[in-house]
Amino acid sequence: MYSIVIPALQRSLTALARILTKAEAHCTDHKIAPDVLLAARLFPDMLPLSRQVQLTCDFATRMNARLTGATVPNHPDTETTFAQLKARIATVQAELANATPDGFKDAATRSITFKAGPSEMTLSGQDYYAHFALPQFYFHMSMAYAILRHSGVVLGKRDYMAAPEA
Amino acid sequence: MYSIVIPALQRSLTALARILTKAEAHCTDHKIAPDVLLAARLFPDMLPLSRQVQLTCDFATRMNARLTGATVPNHPDTETTFAQLKARIATVQAELANATPDGFKDAATRSITFKAGPSEMTLSGQDYYAHFALPQFYFHMSMAYAILRHSGVVLGKRDYMAAPEA
Repeated sequence: MYSIVIPALQRSLTALARILTKAEAHCTDHKIAPDVLLAARLFPDMLPLSRQVQLTCDFATRMNARLTGATVPNHPDTETTFAQLKARIATVQAELANATPDGFKDAATRSITFKAGPSEMTLSGQDYYAHFALPQFYFHMSMAYAILRHSGVVLGKRDYMAAPEA
Repeated sequence: MYSIVIPALQRSLTALARILTKAEAHCTDHKIAPDVLLAARLFPDMLPLSRQVQLTCDFATRMNARLTGATVPNHPDTETTFAQLKARIATVQAELANATPDGFKDAATRSITFKAGPSEMTLSGQDYYAHFALPQFYFHMSMAYAILRHSGVVLGKRDYMAAPEA
């Protein structure tokens, strides 16, 4: 499963870091306090931009750790600036860079037990990836994108898709 | 690749249909014209709810067809009501229900050439799935969810995740 999981996460996290760079530049250009954008939400009971980025990172961290049978690294959600969120992404990228095909050789069939909201779930590695972790990874990344687009940051699908810089 | 691709798409499309049912009920409860919600956007140059649903469907249709070497079915984007969008989802679900593990046996290595914006891309089936089609499937589904949440429809992550009905 290495080749189906890791390169796509790496690519999306690269995209997310670039999106945050554009968001920060938007703050500078339009004299917006970065805190305001980092706290922006699509609806009052939804999570703000900063948490959407942290959760995107978390799902990548957890997928990599759980699919390889490693302990999930603990990354406290202390980031309060764009620079810190990009450092968090870089931390996850370093974790993913250490992943190997050999480490993933039992990933599809590994039994994975994890907390999902109030309950505990057990799934095979493949089902954990396809039914649980990956949809949530893209969900939170998409919410980060949606918050920024709704806030007027100039982004396009190419940014989400990590298209090569022109 | 059948087991990693098809059940997750089926599950997410089931979730999307249920989300549309809740959105339609929200219109009834709050005397909102369904057309207004179907035309809602997160930003003026983003696509409206109806197109987000159609694109979610398209990426599922295309993944299933291209990964099995079939011709991509042509679904014109003519839906103008919640009922019609749910029928579109049902059409895609019927396509997915016809998929078989045997049909997917060469999916990972099949060479897939497709139009992506102005250019043509060729990827292996696995890369087409992991780097291109699946991120976009979840992107458009997430945008549909985001538009509805931003419009005040009461939904939660459980709806996006197709958690079983309580």
